[in-house]
Amino acid sequence: MKAIGIYKNTSVDEENCFIEEQLDKPVAKGGDVLVQVKAVSVNPVDTKQRKMKEDDGNFRILGFDAAGVIEEVGEDVQGFEPGDEVFYAGSVARQGSNSEYQLVDHQVIAKKPSNLSFSDAAALPLTALTAWEAMFEKMHIPLDIEANKGKTILLINAAGGVGSIASQLAKLHGLTVIGTASREETEKWANQHGTERTINHHKPLHPQLEALDFDNDTVDYVFCMHQLDKAWDDIIEVIRPEGIIAAITGPVEGIKLTDLTSKSLTLVWEYMFTRTLHQTDSKYKQGEILTKVAELLEEGRLRTTKAEELKGLTAKNLQEAHKRLEAGSMIGKLVISV
Amino acid sequence: MKAIGIYKNTSVDEENCFIEEQLDKPVAKGGDVLVQVKAVSVNPVDTKQRKMKEDDGNFRILGFDAAGVIEEVGEDVQGFEPGDEVFYAGSVARQGSNSEYQLVDHQVIAKKPSNLSFSDAAALPLTALTAWEAMFEKMHIPLDIEANKGKTILLINAAGGVGSIASQLAKLHGLTVIGTASREETEKWANQHGTERTINHHKPLHPQLEALDFDNDTVDYVFCMHQLDKAWDDIIEVIRPEGIIAAITGPVEGIKLTDLTSKSLTLVWEYMFTRTLHQTDSKYKQGEILTKVAELLEEGRLRTTKAEELKGLTAKNLQEAHKRLEAGSMIGKLVISV
Repeated sequence: MKAIGIYKNTSVDEENCFIEEQLDKPVAKGGDVLVQVKAVSVNPVDTKQRKMKEDDGNFRILGFDAAGVIEEVGEDVQGFEPGDEVFYAGSVARQGSNSEYQLVDHQVIAKKPSNLSFSDAAALPLTALTAWEAMFEKMHIPLDIEANKGKTILLINAAGGVGSIASQLAKLHGLTVIGTASREETEKWANQHGTERTINHHKPLHPQLEALDFDNDTVDYVFCMHQLDKAWDDIIEVIRPEGIIAAITGPVEGIKLTDLTSKSLTLVWEYMFTRTLHQTDSKYKQGEILTKVAELLEEGRLRTTKAEELKGLTAKNLQEAHKRLEAGSMIGKLVISV
Repeated sequence: MKAIGIYKNTSVDEENCFIEEQLDKPVAKGGDVLVQVKAVSVNPVDTKQRKMKEDDGNFRILGFDAAGVIEEVGEDVQGFEPGDEVFYAGSVARQGSNSEYQLVDHQVIAKKPSNLSFSDAAALPLTALTAWEAMFEKMHIPLDIEANKGKTILLINAAGGVGSIASQLAKLHGLTVIGTASREETEKWANQHGTERTINHHKPLHPQLEALDFDNDTVDYVFCMHQLDKAWDDIIEVIRPEGIIAAITGPVEGIKLTDLTSKSLTLVWEYMFTRTLHQTDSKYKQGEILTKVAELLEEGRLRTTKAEELKGLTAKNLQEAHKRLEAGSMIGKLVISV
């Protein structure tokens, strides 16, 4: 099978940033399924993993979002069979999806929403799992719409990959959603994906919240998806006493933890790959969350966050995708279809 | 009325560390009750507040734990009347309990457990509120005993004021309680107050957990009540993926927040005075928590954490109490009865 990867860390400006190799097609055993990959999407974790790759002679396949068709199931797999269309994020501890075929643990996959194309579906797993785990598990935001009435969440970087699905999920569960965006196009995208009001994260947030036509100039929850260190002082200012802050990325240098004390704040760290990396008992929940997300997509209550699609899973397209990610101005998700 | 306090920050070694003044007896208005104080206890917040006192000419009465008898109620008070015996922590934003009479918001007080003396009751409010809010609200530990079966909490400084009641509350709600203690007497005290196994926080914790006769060498929750910075590396090592760390005190310098990432950990800050300081809508919950704690005390399911009692609320006894607290080797709570 064809697989695209790296032997050592590379720059997106190098000519051979990615290499295409012919590898043996893997065999599904135990709880694994073998998936014929139809579409993948790229995430910041891809560029981080690329830069961290050790020059150890091993070929590393990146790619931590995919949609495809099950080709083969291991003897312990339940609930899936060959021919099933599925979508998943998988695990950073294993080879990724930038490959013709991929092995993945059946506990962390779900049936692809039937009304979505492979590429529309491939945009979602990693970001939907991140948003769901952060908000409905770690921040303990209730799934009960009534209980969230009158509660407000601030999403820092609402138009990004995680932001575009977090905003939809938050709105769907009854929260008032305020998101940050700093350009006309990101503002527009955020408003199309669940964000009710946008404010600009390059300006002080509190005066902008005060200027909105809401009862409150403070928020119950802050979900920071970009540059936590730069956003920190604004977050501490706008969050209510007993509020909860979730973060998925640093930098964290210079953050003063004493800022948490007077208001008794909680800081939640969400890393979607914790469950597969540490093989926690709870990893099956990722299959459950994706199943729930697929239902909401089928019901038309969520929409894909795919903003752009490159056709052809090639070394050149993958390099182009990493280049866009590193430029840091991504809107929604970039998908590569096979 | 007689009140004991300070005009400026003082050292516990000064001759006149505290001053006794004769003040007008206050009048209960609005939601306040006026309490005739019968016993108080001392907490680290007292010594911190003493050291922070500005030399602004104002007389500051410390003391943030009390039991007493209601003398008078404001026109908005519901559920309490003169003659009621009550216990409470009150608010650091107001004058404290080291006084013959004290005004306190009726929303943050509760009826004193009928089977406890004033001094046994005065030991508890601040620490019980801290432990309850940290564990059952902010860490989201269920109040359902069955749900906590198989879950383990590690209490750093189990024999301290908060530790001695946190351990009882955690055990009562079905958690396995492991506590740290470093001296024979603190180990004994911790074991008498809900801690099932003690380990020594002056030695690496993980090998000690491994040596215990439990299934796991990791814990679901860590409640750190002493020197968070020194305990941090041990906490990160022993806590399970997706675990929750609660802290009530620093220092926090040097703590690396990136340690939270791989395991998707949550850091909760608990400060009992957040609700009264920021006048949150949730402050009435402190009255409810103390009422629940009083019930558990009356049912004999909790016991007082009073370890020692000084008789007579005098400047001299208060100075002695602050001296003991600052020495840092306190076991349980030190109470001063009027």
